[in-house]
Amino acid sequence: MLCRIANAAMIKATEKYDIGQSLPWAEVLDNLLFNSEGLIPAIAQQFDSREVLMMAWMNRESLQETLKTGRVCYFSRSRQRLWRKGESSGQIQLLQEMRLDCDGDTILLLVKQTGPACHTGRKSCFYNRVEDDKVSVIEAPLIDPASLYGKHE
Amino acid sequence: MLCRIANAAMIKATEKYDIGQSLPWAEVLDNLLFNSEGLIPAIAQQFDSREVLMMAWMNRESLQETLKTGRVCYFSRSRQRLWRKGESSGQIQLLQEMRLDCDGDTILLLVKQTGPACHTGRKSCFYNRVEDDKVSVIEAPLIDPASLYGKHE
Repeated sequence: MLCRIANAAMIKATEKYDIGQSLPWAEVLDNLLFNSEGLIPAIAQQFDSREVLMMAWMNRESLQETLKTGRVCYFSRSRQRLWRKGESSGQIQLLQEMRLDCDGDTILLLVKQTGPACHTGRKSCFYNRVEDDKVSVIEAPLIDPASLYGKHE
Repeated sequence: MLCRIANAAMIKATEKYDIGQSLPWAEVLDNLLFNSEGLIPAIAQQFDSREVLMMAWMNRESLQETLKTGRVCYFSRSRQRLWRKGESSGQIQLLQEMRLDCDGDTILLLVKQTGPACHTGRKSCFYNRVEDDKVSVIEAPLIDPASLYGKHE
């Protein structure tokens, strides 16, 4: 818990910064608020339309790989290994910009998504709307998910 | 773990649904993939500009209250209680639409944000950009955070 407080304070220093002021990424990376599993939530947003595509998890290694290669790499909790988005479906995400929030506990990825982000073939994973005591589908697949090999990445 | 698999299967049924097909919200709520603390991540996005404002956590009660009142209510992990966004700052979020992702483990809130979403006085919490081995501030406060009582909600 002490560790968490110390981490937060380091990144929260940017609260008072003017536009253009910066911290070294290496130091920030050491102080991101990864959870007890070493993971941090990452939101993927289409860079031009600003559609929110999905939320997944990253670890230290996937953050570094993403910045190095420019192709988004998450950490799959179900498979407990690095997950290079699109490795089975071909629907990759090219990183346009990476942002951090004020507390250093969430990542925002502005991406150029190839085809659908969702394993169902839909552009976005957020295709269910809650309204009037119902949850309704509001988006159709762009392509047949069977052509994405019919499996969740 | 068996419970998690059962939950996921219920919501994943919507994968095959056409636009307009629905499930009862009460059943979906019972099967959302809350974590071991009873929480689910929620992304807040400004409904018109599509700017991603923040990420926070909700529990079952905060989801129900948000739908009932139309004002976004989170669950504060630091204070371990319901957190009606804006209760100390006055900067509230009016719900325009609530969406769920394909796995039922993340919420997307389309909101009408009053003033800044961030406790620093900035519109969005994602004001730090990672680029060229630096993390740089890219957004200025809309208002002096001291006028928000100078404290994080």
